[in-house]
Amino acid sequence: MNIDGSHYRTIWVKEGNPGTIQVIDQSRLPHSFEIIDLTTVDDFVSAIRDMYIRGAGLIGATAGFGMYIAALDAPDANFDTFIQDAAAKLIRTRPTAQNLEWAVKRQIKAMERESSPGMKREAAFAGARAIADEDSAFCKMIGEHGIVIIEEIARKKGNDTVHVLTHCNAGWLAFVDFGSATSPIYLAFDRGIDIHVWVDETRPRNQGASLTSWELGKHGVPHDLIVDNAGGHLMQHGMVDLVITGADRVTSTGDAANKIGTYLKALAAKDNGIPFYVALPSSTFDWSLTDGVAQIPIEERDPKEVTYITGKGQDSIQDVLICPETTTARNFGFDVTPSRLITGLITERGVCRADHESILKLYPEKV
Amino acid sequence: MNIDGSHYRTIWVKEGNPGTIQVIDQSRLPHSFEIIDLTTVDDFVSAIRDMYIRGAGLIGATAGFGMYIAALDAPDANFDTFIQDAAAKLIRTRPTAQNLEWAVKRQIKAMERESSPGMKREAAFAGARAIADEDSAFCKMIGEHGIVIIEEIARKKGNDTVHVLTHCNAGWLAFVDFGSATSPIYLAFDRGIDIHVWVDETRPRNQGASLTSWELGKHGVPHDLIVDNAGGHLMQHGMVDLVITGADRVTSTGDAANKIGTYLKALAAKDNGIPFYVALPSSTFDWSLTDGVAQIPIEERDPKEVTYITGKGQDSIQDVLICPETTTARNFGFDVTPSRLITGLITERGVCRADHESILKLYPEKV
Repeated sequence: MNIDGSHYRTIWVKEGNPGTIQVIDQSRLPHSFEIIDLTTVDDFVSAIRDMYIRGAGLIGATAGFGMYIAALDAPDANFDTFIQDAAAKLIRTRPTAQNLEWAVKRQIKAMERESSPGMKREAAFAGARAIADEDSAFCKMIGEHGIVIIEEIARKKGNDTVHVLTHCNAGWLAFVDFGSATSPIYLAFDRGIDIHVWVDETRPRNQGASLTSWELGKHGVPHDLIVDNAGGHLMQHGMVDLVITGADRVTSTGDAANKIGTYLKALAAKDNGIPFYVALPSSTFDWSLTDGVAQIPIEERDPKEVTYITGKGQDSIQDVLICPETTTARNFGFDVTPSRLITGLITERGVCRADHESILKLYPEKV
Repeated sequence: MNIDGSHYRTIWVKEGNPGTIQVIDQSRLPHSFEIIDLTTVDDFVSAIRDMYIRGAGLIGATAGFGMYIAALDAPDANFDTFIQDAAAKLIRTRPTAQNLEWAVKRQIKAMERESSPGMKREAAFAGARAIADEDSAFCKMIGEHGIVIIEEIARKKGNDTVHVLTHCNAGWLAFVDFGSATSPIYLAFDRGIDIHVWVDETRPRNQGASLTSWELGKHGVPHDLIVDNAGGHLMQHGMVDLVITGADRVTSTGDAANKIGTYLKALAAKDNGIPFYVALPSSTFDWSLTDGVAQIPIEERDPKEVTYITGKGQDSIQDVLICPETTTARNFGFDVTPSRLITGLITERGVCRADHESILKLYPEKV
């Protein structure tokens, strides 16, 4: 996507230096645009765990490149053990993220097909680039399939403004390019549909306020920031036509784990008869699970993400305390939206209902 | 209630100076405890509009004292016009707040019963004190009626911890004393019930984080702060036994306007079979309304309450920007929870179902 006229992906190999991977430091956005270098497995662990990068697809792509860097660093004599250690370290960073484990395992498989450490390193490099390219291509296809839904609403409204609500950031910053939830939105905007986005700020880390607002602004898509509490009121008053969110892990039965608070928006959409779609590349499916609420592990993070808020003060980026110093907090990162609340899934292969049978029609190889 | 061993109400007449009303400056909590003097009608307008004080009952009590100060300041020759002007100014400050208009009209009626300006001033003084005393007494009764619900849950759980979720601040800071939603909680705690409160931070103004956490902490009630997005997840996982919120205006049919986001929690409670109660003194009923979503006016406030967050930085209380500088925002202060989602109303006269017939059984004089 474009930032002030330049094309960027969220992760890439540093020019002239295949041992260095570069990413946009998303913890500094929207106040500062900075690129950071990742050169060791520990750099990758920290980038994912401490959320310099985040988002379903980008976590996967970063894990893919992390495994490549592990392969570069692994001593020939002890190659497999080193790789397994790196894989375990990477997988531990974000327990809910399906793309993480998926990418790590895909890289291990790619290396297992080769015999020598040198060949394994090459396979890991090719694998990492393939994961990133595929993520980008799949997100582009999500846009092509999802725009049909937006076009139909626009037609029904006589080309009046289509209001889409989204939660968190499932934009191009969350993937390698295009985004999942935002991909149909960008495409609709580019094709001249009158579209407006309600951006949930998405506490505790405010990825909606800091990342989705920034992305949409850079692309010129009209939007307004709202607090996470506001969506229900907007829906009650006919101010939302469609909800599209991303997902961090989706069961084979269509239950979707996504940023905490998604479930509340899905309930409100259901209560007000508003279509609620989850957009995801197939790398986000966890084919082994059938009950999201019971089975998807929910990451609990540092309570300081709740008690402190990061923003731009008079001179610098600061953390401010929003409660008494002695207050304790709990910080669950995700919730699960049961499939019964989801109108449909938008994938790279098309749109389907959020149930086992419909999902398997798109992915028959998973039967 | 108690602050570090001293008894406080939220509003009182300054000792030895009946022309000065004092309130706790709630915009400085929890980081700083400051008392401010209100001596003119404009002071009262600013205190309510700019939210130095807030909360259903306290807005009413402040409006009552504001009308008393108006009576003090009104010239004998032009008494009624001055009073009407002051009433209009006060009512305009917070469009959703039912107690505001109720208190102002009650004071006008009290003055109309008297003939001379001197007698009217005395009536306004007595009236303001009566509104405050009644608010305190009614909140105390809400505690007595509401504790029955908590006791029953505690009994069913074999005296295991009862987890109550609350949204915004319907604590003693929102009233003159005791609070509405918190009154049963304080009483349960004081009577030895093992109780724990999930405190929604309540964006955009974070009254949960800054006020409810502070209140509960000062009283010693166990609690944890959560983001507004978290309630649904907690309810899905059996971590909430009961929701109690306050209200800013309740129709005669039981629809409840309360802080934005309440509706989302009510949906989640319904979806998970968790009792959802709204606590209110009768001054919060708007007997003229029958459809809350259609009829209750919803205040829209300054977008800067969304784009900036106030908290304690390294040295001082600061506002930090959480989105790009060019981002626009919308800021709706309240939403309406339809009565079908409300298990019951806890009033000073008892607990009833949230429907017209049940409400009128408690308030037969309103038939």
